[in-house]
Amino acid sequence: MFIQIDNLLAVEEVQAIAEIARQVRFVDGRRSNPHNTSKVTEIADADDPLSQKASQVALAALQRNEQARNFVFPRRMAMPTLARYGVGMKYGAHTDAAFLPIGMQPLRSDVSCTLFISDPKDYEGGELNIFLGSETLSIKGKPGSAVFYPSTTVHEVAPVTSGERLVIIGFIESQIPDQMQRDLLYTLREVRALEGLKMDWRNQIQLEYVITNLQRMWSK
Amino acid sequence: MFIQIDNLLAVEEVQAIAEIARQVRFVDGRRSNPHNTSKVTEIADADDPLSQKASQVALAALQRNEQARNFVFPRRMAMPTLARYGVGMKYGAHTDAAFLPIGMQPLRSDVSCTLFISDPKDYEGGELNIFLGSETLSIKGKPGSAVFYPSTTVHEVAPVTSGERLVIIGFIESQIPDQMQRDLLYTLREVRALEGLKMDWRNQIQLEYVITNLQRMWSK
Amino acid sequence: MFIQIDNLLAVEEVQAIAEIARQVRFVDGRRSNPHNTSKVTEIADADDPLSQKASQVALAALQRNEQARNFVFPRRMAMPTLARYGVGMKYGAHTDAAFLPIGMQPLRSDVSCTLFISDPKDYEGGELNIFLGSETLSIKGKPGSAVFYPSTTVHEVAPVTSGERLVIIGFIESQIPDQMQRDLLYTLREVRALEGLKMDWRNQIQLEYVITNLQRMWSK
Amino acid sequence: MFIQIDNLLAVEEVQAIAEIARQVRFVDGRRSNPHNTSKVTEIADADDPLSQKASQVALAALQRNEQARNFVFPRRMAMPTLARYGVGMKYGAHTDAAFLPIGMQPLRSDVSCTLFISDPKDYEGGELNIFLGSETLSIKGKPGSAVFYPSTTVHEVAPVTSGERLVIIGFIESQIPDQMQRDLLYTLREVRALEGLKMDWRNQIQLEYVITNLQRMWSK
Amino acid sequence: MFIQIDNLLAVEEVQAIAEIARQVRFVDGRRSNPHNTSKVTEIADADDPLSQKASQVALAALQRNEQARNFVFPRRMAMPTLARYGVGMKYGAHTDAAFLPIGMQPLRSDVSCTLFISDPKDYEGGELNIFLGSETLSIKGKPGSAVFYPSTTVHEVAPVTSGERLVIIGFIESQIPDQMQRDLLYTLREVRALEGLKMDWRNQIQLEYVITNLQRMWSK
Amino acid sequence: MFIQIDNLLAVEEVQAIAEIARQVRFVDGRRSNPHNTSKVTEIADADDPLSQKASQVALAALQRNEQARNFVFPRRMAMPTLARYGVGMKYGAHTDAAFLPIGMQPLRSDVSCTLFISDPKDYEGGELNIFLGSETLSIKGKPGSAVFYPSTTVHEVAPVTSGERLVIIGFIESQIPDQMQRDLLYTLREVRALEGLKMDWRNQIQLEYVITNLQRMWSK
Repeated sequence: MFIQIDNLLAVEEVQAIAEIARQVRFVDGRRSNPHNTSKVTEIADADDPLSQKASQVALAALQRNEQARNFVFPRRMAMPTLARYGVGMKYGAHTDAAFLPIGMQPLRSDVSCTLFISDPKDYEGGELNIFLGSETLSIKGKPGSAVFYPSTTVHEVAPVTSGERLVIIGFIESQIPDQMQRDLLYTLREVRALEGLKMDWRNQIQLEYVITNLQRMWSK
Repeated sequence: MFIQIDNLLAVEEVQAIAEIARQVRFVDGRRSNPHNTSKVTEIADADDPLSQKASQVALAALQRNEQARNFVFPRRMAMPTLARYGVGMKYGAHTDAAFLPIGMQPLRSDVSCTLFISDPKDYEGGELNIFLGSETLSIKGKPGSAVFYPSTTVHEVAPVTSGERLVIIGFIESQIPDQMQRDLLYTLREVRALEGLKMDWRNQIQLEYVITNLQRMWSK
Repeated sequence: MFIQIDNLLAVEEVQAIAEIARQVRFVDGRRSNPHNTSKVTEIADADDPLSQKASQVALAALQRNEQARNFVFPRRMAMPTLARYGVGMKYGAHTDAAFLPIGMQPLRSDVSCTLFISDPKDYEGGELNIFLGSETLSIKGKPGSAVFYPSTTVHEVAPVTSGERLVIIGFIESQIPDQMQRDLLYTLREVRALEGLKMDWRNQIQLEYVITNLQRMWSK
Repeated sequence: MFIQIDNLLAVEEVQAIAEIARQVRFVDGRRSNPHNTSKVTEIADADDPLSQKASQVALAALQRNEQARNFVFPRRMAMPTLARYGVGMKYGAHTDAAFLPIGMQPLRSDVSCTLFISDPKDYEGGELNIFLGSETLSIKGKPGSAVFYPSTTVHEVAPVTSGERLVIIGFIESQIPDQMQRDLLYTLREVRALEGLKMDWRNQIQLEYVITNLQRMWSK
Repeated sequence: MFIQIDNLLAVEEVQAIAEIARQVRFVDGRRSNPHNTSKVTEIADADDPLSQKASQVALAALQRNEQARNFVFPRRMAMPTLARYGVGMKYGAHTDAAFLPIGMQPLRSDVSCTLFISDPKDYEGGELNIFLGSETLSIKGKPGSAVFYPSTTVHEVAPVTSGERLVIIGFIESQIPDQMQRDLLYTLREVRALEGLKMDWRNQIQLEYVITNLQRMWSK
Repeated sequence: MFIQIDNLLAVEEVQAIAEIARQVRFVDGRRSNPHNTSKVTEIADADDPLSQKASQVALAALQRNEQARNFVFPRRMAMPTLARYGVGMKYGAHTDAAFLPIGMQPLRSDVSCTLFISDPKDYEGGELNIFLGSETLSIKGKPGSAVFYPSTTVHEVAPVTSGERLVIIGFIESQIPDQMQRDLLYTLREVRALEGLKMDWRNQIQLEYVITNLQRMWSK
């Protein structure tokens, strides 16, 4: 399942990150995937304090957003990374790695997210294309918006043909790794949030009984 | 989980089965479990047409009861059996067999049920005791009532010390063999039955989405 | 996962079904879902021999198509149904039922399919919209093409605003009910089909070892 | 499954906790579940050193009890809490939360336990009622005894109608979260403990083979 | 897991099948796997009544053997096939097909078996080699013996370098498809068979409780 | 599955450990399994710095070996232990413990390994026998070699009848605890390593899609 959330970053945060992007040192994006010749992009150098500041702003925004938390059931999150796609840059079709070597214990990437910094009017190409068999979802979000999608999908960033595409990318380990289970539990909790208070209290308890036990069963 | 349903058999059906019990040929209940020395009871001879009639009445009652169907998710049911516990008879602690050799394909017993024919005022002892670790549920139902319980439990029929205990026993293979999953799905469908029509139609669809997919996932 | 297959029906088959649609008796589509007020469509009367002929043509086409078989791992298929959406007709957002009452044993619907008879140029609206959280796949296939999608999704047929939309709908029980597992196995078998003969024979055997064991593990 | 263990707390420990209850600062029990209007009880203030002492005594008793360890397969335990139910107090039907926000990683509550401090002769009402569908287990333990039950159940504390009910409540994450698997493994290990040494050594090894592999399979 | 059973076929049955092998019509073994160039063997023509007689003898022997039934938990069995490996014949490394197209519903092959007809002194080569990573089990059974092994393994028949190797091969669908689960349940039932009667009756019931519930859980 | 890896320890490392074995303090091997009367062996005293040095050499060798890493998917490893079997010593049939009490969180032993220090020509008996039902794998490795096998198996060290058997034993928790799943993923990654670069890039991506998602699904 997919969710686009508008204004996950406030306008000032988008501007701050865009400003950082003008000053930060960028390095070859292949640094993190040296063998992937289809990855032609630049990422902010993690050693540059400006890069770290952009990541911190994005991380805080991701953590404070209630809709994102409800949808993702986050357990751990990798430090988000600022990426730049200039003209001709792209990231060919790929699956995100199952595990990222972070800290003491590798982080399993269950949900990936892209935070859009550039305005889609300011660049051509650069769509995030998610392949679902013969069908394709094509996403180009507004500045400050974020899209969350299963790390399990094959997806690409199409070549940028004009302008510049700035995004921040994140990888999240979920308490509920199976995407169908995660979506069913998210949906049931949304139903409770919207309808629960109108229900007879006995039915509220019964619904709570189902939700807490699905959460126990499916968390890993 | 456990459910007692009153009046699963109509008064006339209870009387008809009690009348059959006075005439039918009973045989040693160990016929179906020859090695179980703790089983001291009698069952109506399956070859006696009277026995078959009692079974048919019980089967029809089990199949027409909506609450039972909702709780059990029945796929197949063994032919119910009329059993008689006279004074001193009992069925020691045991687990119901996992599979019964019925027809072409063995029937997995997921849910067991007891239909009470005798009035509990007319016999002493004879409780259906279901052991849950250090705790015990002790059940002695009204004539015409039925209790459904997981075949997975250890349970006994306590010795009858006076009067006569007539019951019909049944074994059911469920579409949802795991008892926790079966109970969660039953509960969620009860919530829908009681609250669904009051909900915004979008939330009804979302709840339906969860229910149909849990049913797909959990049926075996 | 989703797959669109062109020319699943031959041109003559499309014409034959379109001709049947002009003569067959149509009945209210709600006959199969009486409580669904959002279903406003017509289905060919299953008692009309012409209806049965259309279903047979579609069934044969579905069964002979190798790509469909590889993608779906079909075990059983419900008889396909010819449906007609005139102006104003629609089928609101819904999930397909988990089980259809067919024959001795209910059929679990794992994969749904729509075979397109009408030319999309001949009607407006009538898109098959599949909801994936905040994103939507919108499909309007060429005559003779088919789309296969998980029965687990919420989807709708948008209102037809001009012309007529004729489709045949089908529900399939898969040997591999979990859609992620089904897609991984389909993908791995496609890789073998395309690359297997070029491999060292030892690696072919190893790949076969993985495929046969995944198929054993995941079939239900 | 359920287990009641007598004398989990020694007589002096019960007395020490009862003495603490006379002096410690109690706060509204809803502090930990602010939205639960059916929770009308008091808990010892976690910031009061006396409260911490009571918790420590209970924790040590829980950790040293072999029968409890065998039954629960504990991995982590939340700090136990002293609770007081005066006249009119109660805790309406509820399910325990799936996760408690403790330390770096939330604690999944698989097994709940109640340690009884007050003598049941000294208060009326206040039963711990555990609902199992239409049946109810009703528990009112002796001072120093403890009852362990799956956190997955709906349960309540009935209103106290006279006297005072003092208990300590605990939540435990088990190595074997599924309650049926946990009970099967517990039972098989009990059989080994009681019968193993009488067995032929080859059969001891075979039984050990089953036990260690079930433990590997089912631990999460 | 692996089991060799001696004298699964009686001496007269071995002789009868050997006699049939002298008269029956053999056809290219690739008939059942046309694309497998590493399969160089002959199988008795299923249309020849003599072939059917050999299969019937083997089938009856497999069905009556209690040790085999206990080990395999058979649900369905494909008709066994008489195969002949003359000098130079072999069956290269392969995995048995996951499903065999038999009757209305494909048969999943969980357990494979080889019944040995020829005396190992009468042929050289022709070992059944089962590959377990870097290790190999090499089996050449006595006349009338049978070996049962998981269909999941990669295995081969080594080239026969002198004499003739006659075997009967069978494929069995098990009630417990997972080989580890099947072996644990087999082992636990063996322990009960050897030690159960010596146990306290309460422990017998507890052991039975574990066994029946594992069987319910793991059967598919 | 099983894998023997030659030269996991370099010649000098083998010599260094053999030298340590001549000087280190050995203690009764039952120290770690006090109740196991069939364990008659000696282990290097973990408190002796020489013992620790031998363990460190072995640990480093295990961690640097790529083939071992690919096969085992290691998450954590217990400190390896130097063991000595003199004449008459042995370790009777047993299963390795499911969990070892190491650090804050018990280590689940999924894969066991034996590193051979002594030359098999220098001792008689002392085979590592792994029992697979009626079949046995019997392993006696070259100096510096290692064998990895599932901790789930019953195995023994046969009595040493002459000479001395020095080995280092290790227990590893795997990211993929189920041995069948671990082997399928290992095999598929081997196929990719050997054939991937020859494939069409689209098929490489598809294969990667399968591998990363199996790894997500199966890791625990």
